[in-house]
Amino acid sequence: MAALGTEEIMPKMNGDRVIADLKRLAEFGRYKTGVHRPTYSLADIESRHWLADKFREAGLDTAIDGIGNVIGRDLRAQRRLLAGSHSETQPYGGWLDGSLGVIYALELARALAEDRDCAGLGIDAVAWADEEGHYGNFLGSRSFAEMLPEEEIDCTRGRDNGVPLREALGQSGFAGRPRERVDPARYIGYLEAHIEQGDTLDGSGLRIGVVETIVGIWNYRVVLIGEQNHAGTTRMVRRRDAGVAMVRLAKRIHDRFPEIAGPRTVWTIGRMLLEPNAPSVIPGRAEMLVQFRDAELDRLAVLERELRGLVDQADCAGPCRVEIETVARTEPRAMDPGFQTQIEAAAERHAPEMHMRLPSAAGHDAAVLSYRMPAGMMFIPSVGGISHHWSEDSKQEDIVLGAQVFADAAEAILRAAR
Amino acid sequence: MAALGTEEIMPKMNGDRVIADLKRLAEFGRYKTGVHRPTYSLADIESRHWLADKFREAGLDTAIDGIGNVIGRDLRAQRRLLAGSHSETQPYGGWLDGSLGVIYALELARALAEDRDCAGLGIDAVAWADEEGHYGNFLGSRSFAEMLPEEEIDCTRGRDNGVPLREALGQSGFAGRPRERVDPARYIGYLEAHIEQGDTLDGSGLRIGVVETIVGIWNYRVVLIGEQNHAGTTRMVRRRDAGVAMVRLAKRIHDRFPEIAGPRTVWTIGRMLLEPNAPSVIPGRAEMLVQFRDAELDRLAVLERELRGLVDQADCAGPCRVEIETVARTEPRAMDPGFQTQIEAAAERHAPEMHMRLPSAAGHDAAVLSYRMPAGMMFIPSVGGISHHWSEDSKQEDIVLGAQVFADAAEAILRAAR
Repeated sequence: MAALGTEEIMPKMNGDRVIADLKRLAEFGRYKTGVHRPTYSLADIESRHWLADKFREAGLDTAIDGIGNVIGRDLRAQRRLLAGSHSETQPYGGWLDGSLGVIYALELARALAEDRDCAGLGIDAVAWADEEGHYGNFLGSRSFAEMLPEEEIDCTRGRDNGVPLREALGQSGFAGRPRERVDPARYIGYLEAHIEQGDTLDGSGLRIGVVETIVGIWNYRVVLIGEQNHAGTTRMVRRRDAGVAMVRLAKRIHDRFPEIAGPRTVWTIGRMLLEPNAPSVIPGRAEMLVQFRDAELDRLAVLERELRGLVDQADCAGPCRVEIETVARTEPRAMDPGFQTQIEAAAERHAPEMHMRLPSAAGHDAAVLSYRMPAGMMFIPSVGGISHHWSEDSKQEDIVLGAQVFADAAEAILRAAR
Repeated sequence: MAALGTEEIMPKMNGDRVIADLKRLAEFGRYKTGVHRPTYSLADIESRHWLADKFREAGLDTAIDGIGNVIGRDLRAQRRLLAGSHSETQPYGGWLDGSLGVIYALELARALAEDRDCAGLGIDAVAWADEEGHYGNFLGSRSFAEMLPEEEIDCTRGRDNGVPLREALGQSGFAGRPRERVDPARYIGYLEAHIEQGDTLDGSGLRIGVVETIVGIWNYRVVLIGEQNHAGTTRMVRRRDAGVAMVRLAKRIHDRFPEIAGPRTVWTIGRMLLEPNAPSVIPGRAEMLVQFRDAELDRLAVLERELRGLVDQADCAGPCRVEIETVARTEPRAMDPGFQTQIEAAAERHAPEMHMRLPSAAGHDAAVLSYRMPAGMMFIPSVGGISHHWSEDSKQEDIVLGAQVFADAAEAILRAAR
């Protein structure tokens, strides 16, 4: 960290202020050492108003839009860099997932405003809504990128509470506000900082990750229909137990996928439901959500073909009907090569030889924005690679270092575009 | 049905009245063609007050006790037969499960009172609480049989709603009332009619089942502890996915049990839970309820040993910790041989050669009562063997025939005890 604090750095990020703001933001929905702040919860709404006030204090022209995005504009600059991340959290999730990139953008706006050598270099700061998918994945960035039609809002419900999205927006006070739409001519590109969430950096002792690609994430709902019946009086030979069928199919998926997966493919069955889920009743219906991720489109297609084949086999074999439905499929998205070079140069300046290029195995708003403008992402290490859990953390010195790398990269990108 | 309606029958059961009362009782919590009447729900409380009124109209000295049992006493008779079943239902369950035996007892009390040749022959009618286990299995009959200590009531909560049992009893208006306790000297025995719930009678074209044994039901909670993490950034080799561990263990149970099961053994995993059960989060904890049933104690012990062995193997193999806890174990219970003979004779009289002896694969209050007095059970056929589902049904002529067989058997048992 020798380079930090030297005269030549501009814009100069204030590490203490970054840490203080992250800690303050984590108060909204605090849970143990983490945060429980689902989209459109009271804590989420309050935190968005707090962020809007901070953006305004930083001199940005700020509004919360009709989907809950907090967008602060630097009206002094012409073509600007869009910077930020999302501000809601996973259920009982970590304090940095999303928040880090939002507070970096806030601090960058302040740093640019405070540095007269940066006159004319401006960013718009943003806190996207619902990247975590409490209602629908990437609601806020997709709304901004004009990839969220009104009809989808009409029919979306809360994943855990079943509340219609329209109702949640109404109760949040966001309904009726205009949804901000991207004007690609205004932006040089989008830059997002995030915790890695995996252990690649932490395990290698490196401090900055330059994201090359954001993986595609393909999600399916598999439904098994059997016959609900009494768990005592229904003889084994007569049963059509949807739970047994689900267990057997899930086992086959877990056995087969390693044989066709790539070195970085991941797959998960994160959600399983039995109906009626009572100890003395044979499940008449079961449901599981199957997800896999890879940076290569061809590999994703192979995995889907295999999954559909296993489902068809199970359906033909009986005794339960098995159906599969695609829930969502995001394409792998390459990050802008020029942005990668700028982030890498900034990392080399502040943490020589302690950075690497890597794909992002998590989805991010940057993937959505990449459809509308050049996009770039940088990572800081996650302690132990733990994420989507309240114990998620990063070292304070990595948070502070990352802020300055982010600022240097942003400045270089802004100057290059002049 | 030739014998029905002849002069010699006494006590004479009124089939129309039985059907009408069953239909009226099914109005409390009606759901499609079935009933949703969980213990201590508003529908359940109202139905118990309605039953108490019906018992009183039949001349019985009636009270609802401190656990919700409705007990009507025939004070004109000295030693009496206790007759009944439970009156709450499974969630979205059938209209006859439990209700049939309660209404048979009600009609029998009326038939005995109306028949002067039956003077001195008396029954106590009962509608037990919570046989179905919305709070704890067999709460009402265990309370009556002095097998439900106060401490268990203190720590029991609703299986689905988590409400403390004490609170549910308070809201029902039953708290503070005395809990009725069995006086074995008062009773000749306990007689219960029930739908079979399986397809043995229906599949064989038979009309009455004489229960020989009620199976033992052994229940276990298996908990798998892994590590909750991000479904994208956590590489497959690093994962400790509690859901995968559950699927693999459940598969092993379903593969192994057929090899050691008896001809009538059944086993079920009716309940599975993942935590946090979110599509993009690796499950950190999983839980399943494993249940098996058999009429032979030795076989139950073998099954338990095997289950514990599979759990230990999974725990040793890793990467998740696996723990097993016994939830409940009921012993197989033989029904009284004399009662079996009387039920069989009554069945032969009204449905010659259309009856059989069989074990009950479902648990029943008669198993609990058998610890305190001779107990007997008879079945009528379930259409298609469907039960614990709102579509459960029995043919009307079987309901009417069963009522008369029940009455004849009860009369014979009462006369034999004089």
